[in-house]
Amino acid sequence: MRNGMIMPGRPGMPRRLACGCYAPPAGMLAAAAVDAASSAPGSSPVNIEAIAGKAKAGGAGAGGLVIDCHGHYTTEPKALFDWRKRQIDAFGDASQAPCVDDLNISDDELRESVEGAQLRLQRERGTSLTIFSPRASGMGHHVGDAAVSQAWSRVSNDLIFRLTKLYPKNFVGVCQLPQSTGVAPNNCIAELERCVSELGFVGCNLNPDPSGGFWKEPPLSDKWWYPLYEKMVELNVPAMVHVSASANAVFHATGAHYINGDTTAFMQFLTSDLFRDFPTLKFIIPHGGGAVPYHWGRYRGLAQDMKRPPLSELLLNNVFFDTCVYHQAGIDLLTKVIPARNILFASEMVGAVKGIDPETGAHYDDTRRYIEQSPSLDAASRRAIFETNARAVYGRLSARLDA
Amino acid sequence: MRNGMIMPGRPGMPRRLACGCYAPPAGMLAAAAVDAASSAPGSSPVNIEAIAGKAKAGGAGAGGLVIDCHGHYTTEPKALFDWRKRQIDAFGDASQAPCVDDLNISDDELRESVEGAQLRLQRERGTSLTIFSPRASGMGHHVGDAAVSQAWSRVSNDLIFRLTKLYPKNFVGVCQLPQSTGVAPNNCIAELERCVSELGFVGCNLNPDPSGGFWKEPPLSDKWWYPLYEKMVELNVPAMVHVSASANAVFHATGAHYINGDTTAFMQFLTSDLFRDFPTLKFIIPHGGGAVPYHWGRYRGLAQDMKRPPLSELLLNNVFFDTCVYHQAGIDLLTKVIPARNILFASEMVGAVKGIDPETGAHYDDTRRYIEQSPSLDAASRRAIFETNARAVYGRLSARLDA
Repeated sequence: MRNGMIMPGRPGMPRRLACGCYAPPAGMLAAAAVDAASSAPGSSPVNIEAIAGKAKAGGAGAGGLVIDCHGHYTTEPKALFDWRKRQIDAFGDASQAPCVDDLNISDDELRESVEGAQLRLQRERGTSLTIFSPRASGMGHHVGDAAVSQAWSRVSNDLIFRLTKLYPKNFVGVCQLPQSTGVAPNNCIAELERCVSELGFVGCNLNPDPSGGFWKEPPLSDKWWYPLYEKMVELNVPAMVHVSASANAVFHATGAHYINGDTTAFMQFLTSDLFRDFPTLKFIIPHGGGAVPYHWGRYRGLAQDMKRPPLSELLLNNVFFDTCVYHQAGIDLLTKVIPARNILFASEMVGAVKGIDPETGAHYDDTRRYIEQSPSLDAASRRAIFETNARAVYGRLSARLDA
Repeated sequence: MRNGMIMPGRPGMPRRLACGCYAPPAGMLAAAAVDAASSAPGSSPVNIEAIAGKAKAGGAGAGGLVIDCHGHYTTEPKALFDWRKRQIDAFGDASQAPCVDDLNISDDELRESVEGAQLRLQRERGTSLTIFSPRASGMGHHVGDAAVSQAWSRVSNDLIFRLTKLYPKNFVGVCQLPQSTGVAPNNCIAELERCVSELGFVGCNLNPDPSGGFWKEPPLSDKWWYPLYEKMVELNVPAMVHVSASANAVFHATGAHYINGDTTAFMQFLTSDLFRDFPTLKFIIPHGGGAVPYHWGRYRGLAQDMKRPPLSELLLNNVFFDTCVYHQAGIDLLTKVIPARNILFASEMVGAVKGIDPETGAHYDDTRRYIEQSPSLDAASRRAIFETNARAVYGRLSARLDA
């Protein structure tokens, strides 16, 4: 083990990795396992009121926490990119592939990578902590095969784990899944379980299009995805629906593919009985729900024309939108048409848009100020958006925060 | 010629059709040709002020016209579906394919198909006329091949032409293009020219994804599309960017594919120099611009991060949004963040959403009332959205209306 590193645990039995190495049996799992074991599997519907009361009683500070539910590790050390490049270059010849343990990043390098970025921005913007996952566009589920995705997810998630241990008050982990285009998502269950049960993560990112912009997988409502959903329900963790990079020239990643993925997923939920089959399954649709709130009348009308139940009944116990909408008018719309209980604060920093808006003098992605200024929200709604909704949707979060 | 029918004209020379028939030489073109010839090709930038002055002087009524720029013929007689079915069933055996002339729909049937639908709704909602095109989801550019698309576009456009002759005050034509997946859009030029120069149409619908949800064509900014753009500029007609049906199970057509197509196209424009190459080319992005206005801060920020010019300079002389957004909050956002000169009134009736919104007691797609109630608009802005912007963007429209 390298000096100064916190290494994530491994399952009890040695397993053959994509690179041809064998992973050692579980070792340094104590802290993470205790954290992870403290949440009961979720089988009851979300009770926001009860959780709000708990948050209040929990003494989260005068103003409460500001939980950013959507942050990616987009300031990775160069060594991670080098590892990934070696892995991709070696595709087809496992003997040349790097081992998970070949990645050599010190704790100091990790600290350096976030101190001037995410942590500084948390301080400057007054946000408390970030639910943190590997870079979304880096997941690259269209690259290589399932073994490639498995090793890549493992090193990516392990870095997130180390950051959550270095900064337990600032980061809570959400995992990348080892999806691979054309491969049934059953292959993701072990990594999900490892991240939640061993590393203390509270959710996962689920890519509705592992093909990278060619949309070859079945809709999220298809039974293809059900084994993964069963595990999510068992572990009491939600998924953020989040595509990865676009390998299709028609789709700009952050400007089109991301937003389309959100809109597409919502419509898959609207037209299906997924939440009849999984009443406690929960999804966060990021980027403010794609196009959905802007077209809320269209979606209400489509559901009505199709003789579906009202959206509040059909999916609003299961589907939540984040606040990654980078101007005041957009947040005003979101908070006007979507019930506050379905909105989770997020900024996706450091993410898709890094500049300062000349119209406001503030960063586009400093979304807290839009929430503060939204005329549709009262204090209770803001508290729900900033904290208690996240505690409700991420069923294991409160046990982590209040431990 | 069948009794009581207005038949569209044909190009001067006989041409072999997909069904194996020969089309007769041009015949009954007088009225359409006069209409069509009265517009000069556009080579100068849009001058909304001048056109607004002309509209006022033109005496369009005390309140002016209310031009709905987005209507599809979604109430087609059954005979059209039967013809299409025969055509698809015969694919691969041209001898079995129906001729264009095999479609037998009388003027009375055409009248009946719109009297109780589009025309009634125009009266009830106080809209003056509809810029009218074949059913978007029916274009089906992923079906068959280029010859199939050519014949199908011809019969579809000819019906629109007949309706514009039966109801010249209510309908102005926009054509379906005979796009076909994998086929360069040069093959659309002849049909565009026929529709504009012979049938008096004022624009076309351009499908950015002829593959029907698999997104196999190059971005709209690619030179693949340039020959068609050259013809559009020469003819002074804009295109509405509009996908057709989704053959991909992940995309619900009107709830996901349509909206994604809009968002995708906008981002293609944002990242390209298309409008440097074609300064007078104009596109209408329907459905309120997809997700774009809701994420206007994201798009401004993305352009800024990419060191692109401001959006107003980069594309707002060329890209326009319609008002097919089916709730007040959505229209309020649209009219707040997008300059009024870039918004064209539309409802897409009879279209994607047919029901009555229980929250308002009015049809979801009765968008005129949202415009009337938008707090961001003054009388001049409303007039621009209802009429003068359409006259500016559809360069041949005023000549049609004021003839």
